[in-house]
Parts: sequence; C-alpha cells; structure tokens
Amino acid sequence: MKLSLLSNKAQSARAENPLGRLTVLLNDDLLAVNALILQRMQSDVKMIPELAGHLIAAGGKRIRPLLTLASAALFGYAGTRQHKLAACVEFIHAATLLHDDVVDASDQRRGKASANALFGNEAAVLVGDFLFSRSFQLMIEDGSLDVLRILSNASAVIAEGEVMQLSTANDTATTEEQYKRVIRSKTAELFAAACEVGAVVAGRSAAECQAMRDYGMNLGIAFQISDDVLDYVATGKRLGKSLGDDFKEGKMTLPVIRAIAKATPAEKKFWNRCLSDLDQSDKDFKEAVALLHKHDVLKDSLDEARRYAGQGIRALSVVPDSPLRQSLEELMVFAVERDY
Amino acid sequence: MKLSLLSNKAQSARAENPLGRLTVLLNDDLLAVNALILQRMQSDVKMIPELAGHLIAAGGKRIRPLLTLASAALFGYAGTRQHKLAACVEFIHAATLLHDDVVDASDQRRGKASANALFGNEAAVLVGDFLFSRSFQLMIEDGSLDVLRILSNASAVIAEGEVMQLSTANDTATTEEQYKRVIRSKTAELFAAACEVGAVVAGRSAAECQAMRDYGMNLGIAFQISDDVLDYVATGKRLGKSLGDDFKEGKMTLPVIRAIAKATPAEKKFWNRCLSDLDQSDKDFKEAVALLHKHDVLKDSLDEARRYAGQGIRALSVVPDSPLRQSLEELMVFAVERDY
Repeated sequence: MKLSLLSNKAQSARAENPLGRLTVLLNDDLLAVNALILQRMQSDVKMIPELAGHLIAAGGKRIRPLLTLASAALFGYAGTRQHKLAACVEFIHAATLLHDDVVDASDQRRGKASANALFGNEAAVLVGDFLFSRSFQLMIEDGSLDVLRILSNASAVIAEGEVMQLSTANDTATTEEQYKRVIRSKTAELFAAACEVGAVVAGRSAAECQAMRDYGMNLGIAFQISDDVLDYVATGKRLGKSLGDDFKEGKMTLPVIRAIAKATPAEKKFWNRCLSDLDQSDKDFKEAVALLHKHDVLKDSLDEARRYAGQGIRALSVVPDSPLRQSLEELMVFAVERDY
Repeated sequence: MKLSLLSNKAQSARAENPLGRLTVLLNDDLLAVNALILQRMQSDVKMIPELAGHLIAAGGKRIRPLLTLASAALFGYAGTRQHKLAACVEFIHAATLLHDDVVDASDQRRGKASANALFGNEAAVLVGDFLFSRSFQLMIEDGSLDVLRILSNASAVIAEGEVMQLSTANDTATTEEQYKRVIRSKTAELFAAACEVGAVVAGRSAAECQAMRDYGMNLGIAFQISDDVLDYVATGKRLGKSLGDDFKEGKMTLPVIRAIAKATPAEKKFWNRCLSDLDQSDKDFKEAVALLHKHDVLKDSLDEARRYAGQGIRALSVVPDSPLRQSLEELMVFAVERDY
C-alpha cells in the first residue's frame, strides 16, 4: 500500500464533512499512524497481515485514532508519542470489529465481505487476539502506565458492553438504562479513551484530561444513538450497512425501546414477534418504521443524541479556540445530523 | 465457592504425582491465587462470572500459575506480587481456551460441556476478551513494565501460534519445523513466560530469569509432544479428552508428520484421505495407530520429548537444590512419562 500525501483534489473532496476536515488538518500525523499500522500488523504468519490488511489497511475512517491525534494537537503537543497510541486505539477497535462480526455472524463490513466470511470465524477470532496483544505491546513500548491503565480499562469495559448487548438482544423488556450502559461501554468508552490518551501524552492537567474524556464519551454516545436511528431511516449511502440490519437481528435500540414503552397491546405483540421471536415477514420493517414515526421516537431519540452532543461541545470549552477545536465541535454536530 | 486449606487426606491424594506435590508445597500461595481469580473475574454483567466460573473457578490443574509461584519461591522471594501475576497467567490461559474451543467447535473441555457449547460461541469469544483485558489490568496494577513486556509478548506469540496451527491443519505436507514452531508458540511460550515472571518478581539476574524461561519453554514443548502422542495411545483416563481427537480433526502432530515422512505410497494416500479430506471410517483410527507403531514414531516422538525434558532439567542447575526444585524436575519427567 502506497502512503502518499493527499493531493489537493483528494483533500478538498475529503474536506466536505467535519471528519474530512479533521483528516486534512491532521494529515501528516495520520500518515505516520497509517505507516505504523501497516508496519506493526506484520507477522511472518502470512494469514495475519492478509486478514488484518483486509480490515485495517484498506478502509475505515480512522475516527478513533484521529481523536487521539486531535486531542494531542489541541494542546500543542510537539512529540510523536500520539502516533503509536493512535495505532493502538485502531488495533483495539479492529480486534473488536473482528470479534463482533463473528458474534453477529456478519458477512459484510465497511461495504466489503467481512473477514470472517472470507477467512473463517476461527481466523477472525485469532487475528483479533493477535491485534489486541499487539496493541498492548505498542503501549508498553510507549511505557506510560497511565496510558496502559486507560486503554486496558477501556478494553475490559468494551468486552463487558458486548456481553451485556448479547444478554439484551431479543429482550423487549430491555430498559433505556440498560441500552445506555451498553452503548457507553461498547462504543463510547473507546472514543473517550482515545481522546483522554491524547491529553495525557500532552502532559495536561487531570481536569483537561477529564474534559477530553468527556468530549469523547459524549461523541460516542451521540454517534451511536444517531447510528441506531439511521438503521431505520437513513437516506444517504451507508458504508457497509443496510437499512434494517438491527431490526433483522432483534437489537434493542433507543427508538425501539421508546416505541415499546408507548405501544398499544397489539403493537407490543408486533415487537415481540419481530424482535424476540425474530418471526418477520417482508412488510414488517415498513410497519416498524411507521410505528416509530407514529410515536415520534426517532425525533425523540435524535433530541437525546443532541443533548449528549451539547455536553460534549461544552466539555471542549477548557481548550483555547482553534481550527482544530472548531472541527471537533463540528464533528459532534455531524455525528448527530448526518443522513448516513 | 469455598476456599479452605486442603485436608491431610486431600493433600496425600494430591501428592501422588509431581504436580500434586507442587500443589502441596505451594498450597498457601495457590489459595491466595484462587481467591484473587474468583475476586477479579467478577463483573455485574452476570454472564461473565457465570461463564468464567464454569471454566476457571471449577477446574483445571493450575499448572501455569503454579509455575509462576514455584519460580518466585525457588529464589526465596518473600513478597506477594507473584499471586496477582499467577492469576494473570491463568486469565490469559482461560481466554485462550475459550477462543480455542470456538475455533475447534469443541463441545467438551476438562471433562465437562465446554463454555461455547453451554453459553454460545458469541459469549465465549467476548468473555475471553474480557478475561484477557482483565489480565492486563492486573499486570498494570502490579506496575512492572518488564512483566508487562513478557506477558504481552507471550500473548501475541500465542495468537500467532494458533493462526499458524489453523494454516497447517489438514495439510499433510506440514514439516516438523512448522509443527515445532506451532507448539512453541501456542503452548510452550506461556509456560516459559509464567516461569520467567516468577524470577523477575524475585529480582533475579538476567541469566537466572532466562534459565527459568528455558525450563518453562522445554516443559511446554515436552508436555505438548507427549500430549500429541497420548492422543493415539493414552491408557489412563484423560481429563476431558478422547483418544483420537486430533486424528478426527486432522491435526498435524509429530507422530503423524514422522509417519508420513516414512510412508509407502499407499500409506500416504491413507493419511491424505483421513487428515486432509477428513474422509474417515470407524476402523481408520485403529489403522492409523498401527501405522504409527509400524514406523516406530510414537517412541521416536517421546524420545524427542525426553530430549527437551533433559534440557529443561539442566536449565534448573542455576538454582540451589531444594524440595521445590526436585518437584520441578519430577514435573518435567512426568510431563513426558504420564499415561494420560
């Protein structure tokens, strides 16, 4: 894979949304991270770079490593430690995706055949383990016990969140509190840790590290709620996802939990049949979307996401204003307002 | 689970083999480790302690944590750091077992239904991830970057070994060199790391740490070769394993690799049909055992295991003589000479 600086044309194409603008602002850092990712996912056991390359090297928006880079850069950190740690964060994320796809028996990821579909579940589990171990090796090279603590805690919390999600799947009695704990753990915790680590590397105060952590946590929650809403109503082209995936699997997400809370007895029966028993016919998804609109829970859920986004933007107030801080603010809005 | 000191009767029953004698010698340490394991595998996500308890709390010989305890005690270390690190080693081992059973689609482990059979593959993958993360959290509490380096390297090497084993399965062209790399990585590396960590905690010289590492590495290799031989000829009761499991899965182990090297064209066809194509009938296992005897490769393989055992025992010569050192020497012999 060739790693070249982005051409002007590619840069302006990328800059159309806040994530693209962040990528342009942090372009040199991101190239260094991509080079590290490629270098450190190598192994003479050929299946490892093949499978890892399929997932990590080829695609992905690198949102989590970008958060680490942005957080370090926000505080004017001039060293290079954030590159290795951003690669760690991406390795942890990749390991999670590989294991997730085995758990979900997914055959698609980022618009391509998933690693488990191509290489088998066994290889996906084991290469996930390798990337996870490699991520800890990178952290240990960095040598900061504070960073190790943050990222190992995040890893344990993510695993807890995934197990919790497994327990709530197909359970229409799942509460909003349970849902929020799941998304905090499985999604937002790594966003939070990625941001916090950047501030730690920059040697900032406990309050500033906590503020960056809060930004990441709120971004992760807002992003995931929006994602769960989009699963029912996305109008844009979603990368590697189809409308209605969550519904098909019987995932208990915020719009559904709120619709069930307001459901008539007949509607409750409908949700139980579709989400608990997974007894679905072709027209059921349309009916589900109609019910979500009837009870206005899609708008409700996005309002909830907006509240988290507001908290996240307020957390950034400890940081001096800069184009980077503005991009992070815009990213927060984009996480909620995107149509894909 | 009640953790009580062993009664005299239980102690003498346990002391019938070297592993039992090691358990008696290190009884107080092992009780502390068991208590830590129970305490630190907790989570308010109920499925985690349920599943982990099924695997870790209930059974297992604790051979790897015993190696850490023995290694620290050999050098007269008087602190308690080895307890937490022995628990780490067991957590890494347990995570590996959980992922292994998913990979092998096993329905038995340690003579009981395997965790994946009872709780599902998804839960086994995710709880494995949790235990792995928890193990790193424990190491970080200990705070030694040397220990972290040793155990994170071991974790990466184990994952590489498992992927390599996946690539060689059902490939009758697998070489002895490939086989040895697989067993060094997937089995012996954690034995080596477990021993090394004990010496590191005791603050010993690089040469002494390396000697303990060598002991563990050789023990692991000897143990695994013997295990691979026993899969064809065990006469004792094997905990949770049946005769012929490796044959049924088409695993390429030392006796088979050596028998294929000496095979007639007709025999080569037999091995290809049974191990590559997995086209097996009831009488094939008996035929396989007969071929292994015909070419004398079972004895050959055990002789190879004995050579590793000899090297491991010699590695211990840096340590003053003691009942503990004698038990470790006997354990090495037992690893090869057991009938189960």
